Amino acid sequence: MGWNTDLRWRLPVICLLLQVVLVVLFGVFVRYDPDADAHWIEERLSKNMSSDLDNEFYFRYPSFQDVHVMIFVGFGFLMTFLQRYGFSAVGFNFLLAAFGIQWALLMQGWLNSFEGNYILVGVENLINADFCVGSVCVAFGAVLGKVSPVQLLIMTLFQVTLFAVNEYILLELLEVKDAGGSMTIHTFGAYFGLTVTRILYRPNLYQSKERQSSVYHSDLFAMIGTLFLWMFWPSFNSAVSNHGDAQHRAVINTYCSLAACVLTSVALSSALQKKGKLDMVHIQNATLAGGVAVGTAAEMMLMPYGALIVGFICGIISTLGFVYLTPFLESHLGIQDTCGIHNLHGIPGIIGGIVGAVTAACANTEMYGKKGLAHAFDPESFKASWTASLQGKFQAAGLFVSLAMALVGGFIVGFILKLPFWGQAADENCFEDAVYWEMPKEQNMTHHSEDPTLKPSEP
Amino acid sequence: MGWNTDLRWRLPVICLLLQVVLVVLFGVFVRYDPDADAHWIEERLSKNMSSDLDNEFYFRYPSFQDVHVMIFVGFGFLMTFLQRYGFSAVGFNFLLAAFGIQWALLMQGWLNSFEGNYILVGVENLINADFCVGSVCVAFGAVLGKVSPVQLLIMTLFQVTLFAVNEYILLELLEVKDAGGSMTIHTFGAYFGLTVTRILYRPNLYQSKERQSSVYHSDLFAMIGTLFLWMFWPSFNSAVSNHGDAQHRAVINTYCSLAACVLTSVALSSALQKKGKLDMVHIQNATLAGGVAVGTAAEMMLMPYGALIVGFICGIISTLGFVYLTPFLESHLGIQDTCGIHNLHGIPGIIGGIVGAVTAACANTEMYGKKGLAHAFDPESFKASWTASLQGKFQAAGLFVSLAMALVGGFIVGFILKLPFWGQAADENCFEDAVYWEMPKEQNMTHHSEDPTLKPSEP
Amino acid sequence: MGWNTDLRWRLPVICLLLQVVLVVLFGVFVRYDPDADAHWIEERLSKNMSSDLDNEFYFRYPSFQDVHVMIFVGFGFLMTFLQRYGFSAVGFNFLLAAFGIQWALLMQGWLNSFEGNYILVGVENLINADFCVGSVCVAFGAVLGKVSPVQLLIMTLFQVTLFAVNEYILLELLEVKDAGGSMTIHTFGAYFGLTVTRILYRPNLYQSKERQSSVYHSDLFAMIGTLFLWMFWPSFNSAVSNHGDAQHRAVINTYCSLAACVLTSVALSSALQKKGKLDMVHIQNATLAGGVAVGTAAEMMLMPYGALIVGFICGIISTLGFVYLTPFLESHLGIQDTCGIHNLHGIPGIIGGIVGAVTAACANTEMYGKKGLAHAFDPESFKASWTASLQGKFQAAGLFVSLAMALVGGFIVGFILKLPFWGQAADENCFEDAVYWEMPKEQNMTHHSEDPTLKPSEP
Repeated sequence: MGWNTDLRWRLPVICLLLQVVLVVLFGVFVRYDPDADAHWIEERLSKNMSSDLDNEFYFRYPSFQDVHVMIFVGFGFLMTFLQRYGFSAVGFNFLLAAFGIQWALLMQGWLNSFEGNYILVGVENLINADFCVGSVCVAFGAVLGKVSPVQLLIMTLFQVTLFAVNEYILLELLEVKDAGGSMTIHTFGAYFGLTVTRILYRPNLYQSKERQSSVYHSDLFAMIGTLFLWMFWPSFNSAVSNHGDAQHRAVINTYCSLAACVLTSVALSSALQKKGKLDMVHIQNATLAGGVAVGTAAEMMLMPYGALIVGFICGIISTLGFVYLTPFLESHLGIQDTCGIHNLHGIPGIIGGIVGAVTAACANTEMYGKKGLAHAFDPESFKASWTASLQGKFQAAGLFVSLAMALVGGFIVGFILKLPFWGQAADENCFEDAVYWEMPKEQNMTHHSEDPTLKPSEP
Repeated sequence: MGWNTDLRWRLPVICLLLQVVLVVLFGVFVRYDPDADAHWIEERLSKNMSSDLDNEFYFRYPSFQDVHVMIFVGFGFLMTFLQRYGFSAVGFNFLLAAFGIQWALLMQGWLNSFEGNYILVGVENLINADFCVGSVCVAFGAVLGKVSPVQLLIMTLFQVTLFAVNEYILLELLEVKDAGGSMTIHTFGAYFGLTVTRILYRPNLYQSKERQSSVYHSDLFAMIGTLFLWMFWPSFNSAVSNHGDAQHRAVINTYCSLAACVLTSVALSSALQKKGKLDMVHIQNATLAGGVAVGTAAEMMLMPYGALIVGFICGIISTLGFVYLTPFLESHLGIQDTCGIHNLHGIPGIIGGIVGAVTAACANTEMYGKKGLAHAFDPESFKASWTASLQGKFQAAGLFVSLAMALVGGFIVGFILKLPFWGQAADENCFEDAVYWEMPKEQNMTHHSEDPTLKPSEP
Repeated sequence: MGWNTDLRWRLPVICLLLQVVLVVLFGVFVRYDPDADAHWIEERLSKNMSSDLDNEFYFRYPSFQDVHVMIFVGFGFLMTFLQRYGFSAVGFNFLLAAFGIQWALLMQGWLNSFEGNYILVGVENLINADFCVGSVCVAFGAVLGKVSPVQLLIMTLFQVTLFAVNEYILLELLEVKDAGGSMTIHTFGAYFGLTVTRILYRPNLYQSKERQSSVYHSDLFAMIGTLFLWMFWPSFNSAVSNHGDAQHRAVINTYCSLAACVLTSVALSSALQKKGKLDMVHIQNATLAGGVAVGTAAEMMLMPYGALIVGFICGIISTLGFVYLTPFLESHLGIQDTCGIHNLHGIPGIIGGIVGAVTAACANTEMYGKKGLAHAFDPESFKASWTASLQGKFQAAGLFVSLAMALVGGFIVGFILKLPFWGQAADENCFEDAVYWEMPKEQNMTHHSEDPTLKPSEP
């Protein structure tokens, strides 16, 4: 399985082609949302809005920037843990996300914000585009080190498309609530990525095993990613919730779940090592599972202790997954999951979908108030036929749809990516930046410390 | 002083036990603040609030996220400067903070937000919990490299408890102002930590001295921590101030103080080295002293030049402390202060308390306006008996109470931590990640640069 | 060209002197903006403002913090790519920025916010001070590795002064729009820095060439800078725009331009390398050119596809510049541009000025609405004589003024910095931290991995 990894024409052509198409499509379809259009001042006056602050921008922009950091620094650096794949982790993540957000603005726009022949783009669209790309970043974790940037761009193209369709089915047709994307982002992204990596199975990957591990400083770089993901996850789960109490509540629930998750991840990491030592892989990943698993229910009346319980359980399950499940999946099912996304996004995503369904099914007017219940579950057209248990069932259905879309989509896209001309590396050259990057000459740093060349001449 | 450092049962048991207790206590006591509860929409309408923006969330959330970054990335990475203790610095800080914020929500809740049998949690509680944990992160700096994660969890348990009590005495009983926590966070945290490290004195710590220093890249990691602390300190000092001008003013004062502090830290660092070279330790730490020292007065009418003067002085004193005081404390008083928190939080904290007392004592209606004065010092129940000088005296009293609580508390907790079964390392194994972490195999990176394995086969 | 690099007296004296002067000038001139003054509560009530949120603080503070991160972490870490100059990159950037923001508050205050003998400082001033320093950070990129911290402080002193004058001419006299500073920040900063580095030409710089390159981890540190600049650039370009739609629109345009820029930078980077491999220098720098080039037009009705086109072009031009222009400038014109700021800030800045002029010249009431047009281009005193094409001409004039100021200013300041007593290093000691920093002893990390010293004794 050795192919030509020289991307000199393939990568430039695909990048430029995609970008030209995007420019044309933006020219035809994309305009500013009324809140971002210069006519807004007239609209504001005509609508008697008292303040410029009523612009949607001020409700969502701080959350948007936090989500933006999660996508580019969070996911990018989380994947720098490999000793010789830091350039690719950060750089390819940067590339696929920069392409993905543009394509997501179009796809999500056509399906959700298409008004009078135009996609009207505002800050909420930017957040949703980042969310969509988040699911590609998740899938990237499964194939990390084994695919070329050309493959990543193609995967992004298809995955964003499928994401938008799946999201449309869930949010518009099934009227499911999924503010933090347990189902649409994490479950879909994880099982899509796992299916792709299964199809791209590399039988001789053991030849690259010595590079599929970290070094001391690469683990510290990865912690930058972990912490920015962990800290900003409350913004992630609340970014597109309803104004006011829903955003506020989503933050509190996510904060609680994540905090609990850290303690149980540490506990299990230590308990599962024979000398009780902690494993950086668990601290970098399992501590985040609590954020994934409250994605759906965070904006609901989950209650702080409910969030703690979710985080508690996910820290345990996720760490167990890293220790037992990942090796099993690799050896028995041929699923080579580089970052262990099944443990961080797959299982916690499913748990999140279930928690969301149960929390929704338990909603009642005592807990939410009558107006609050209508506001939380269907602000625009609260139907007489709505019941909490029905909502719960639709939530569960949404989970299954996401799984099905991920598996079928991943299967097809996997085979497309398997085609032999995308510049993928041979099995013995995986997890190696030098395949796609000009590498700096490594100077022996210790040599320098004596500073023999440094004899500053006096005047 | 050699003990068993295998934490296989101790760490998991304490983590799980603490988390189970937290879940139960949250279940019994913690509910959402009205601004985060689904009933809020009804409340908003009944109170005739014009906009969702009146939700407390929008006043505080951006500041909260900045504070959150300071606690987890700021403190965590600041302590990665040691060459072989980066995993522990970031990882243990992560662990203790994740536990501490949960316990702080309860302790501070019982004392300050307990209403009708419930603690009502909103974004301000999250900020205060982060603040409380900030004081534990400060204390962690003193014992860094010398304690086990089990000891840290126990220290956090007690320190958060004492912090909440001390905060209650200052803010509720003495009606002291301390928005940025010069007294409650920094003075208390520093002297608590210094007392603990004194009790835990390690006579043979010199055996680990070769690891108690930095390497080139560990110093750069530490600068990530320094800069995020420095940049977001204005958010820290303004996060819980009154809405409007007080938050605005606290930001300006902190910005000014920090900027001045950088110049005087650099000046002293260069002046105190025989060849005029700068010391990374000073740049990483002393530059932050200005933020600590305007913690109390930042929201007051300190005036921008007042803030500059505070920063000016603290940069000098803090750098002098690193050069002269820390070695003295270690050799003469047996205080082994790994990060030099006495220079960054101890002395600047005391200065901050004094500056706050003096600034409060100088407050008058000319400077604040009549309404402004009432608003700044006691918005709810402005007493007829209130005078600025009285406020100043209470501020000073608050400083002494904080110091007393820190010393007494640190003394007791120090002896608890001295018990021989918490998994602490021997004197010759301090400042070493390998005691508590599975370490990656270090590959000689220079080896790779030639990239001998990389012969991409052609198709 | 060997001088005494011992800064023991020079650096401390200049730092302390500058800071003392700043304290005095702040004492005489700087007071709080009404929105940050304790009298605000009275003003708010008298003006019948409905909410504390009308305080300017809440419109701008999140953007301010993002800009702050760009200046200190963004620029600081971007320049850590050199293998042995990370301390200086981050540390000197920290120093010059901390001084520069104080001096900018004064200079910009005297010229723009001087009311009744006082400079009234609020959050917008803080942002503008950060912007001003941003132009110094740009210039620092040209001279990186070749100047002493004393020279940097002197350069900052003069450049901030000239920046404020240039900004005054553009914004106040020519009434130019330049929210994101394509002209005032980037064009001015870049050509100022390039002129300075030309005057400081070092004929024997090749003697330091082996250090003028990166190592593996220094490139990853630099990516931290790149990503924080990239992510927060939408905040940069929108931070001082009009409230409401203008801020909102500036964010969308910048987001689009930056995304497109990534794809074309990657395309060109790969196409220009003979084996199609990517060059970290391009990913670190050229990907940002799109943000520079929409600086002026971001708040205008550029349209999303217009932003994409700008980013598209700049990614290409910037990468071409790194490959062909920078070596040419060095070998033929004697311009030693360490970071290639000509490609990241120079050319994209000029493009940004032109794009702004054209976009302004095309403005019409159909696109903006009548009120919107007045609001966008001259909210206070919309003159009858105003026409879009006139605005376009003034925009173009602003670009030429900025270029002229940069070249003349850089010429003069260059000669001041050329004086032989500022502690600059010899040509063979450039790009070397050890000249100005106490260096940690480098331990061979590989030595440690076996952990031979670690035999934890049992109890």
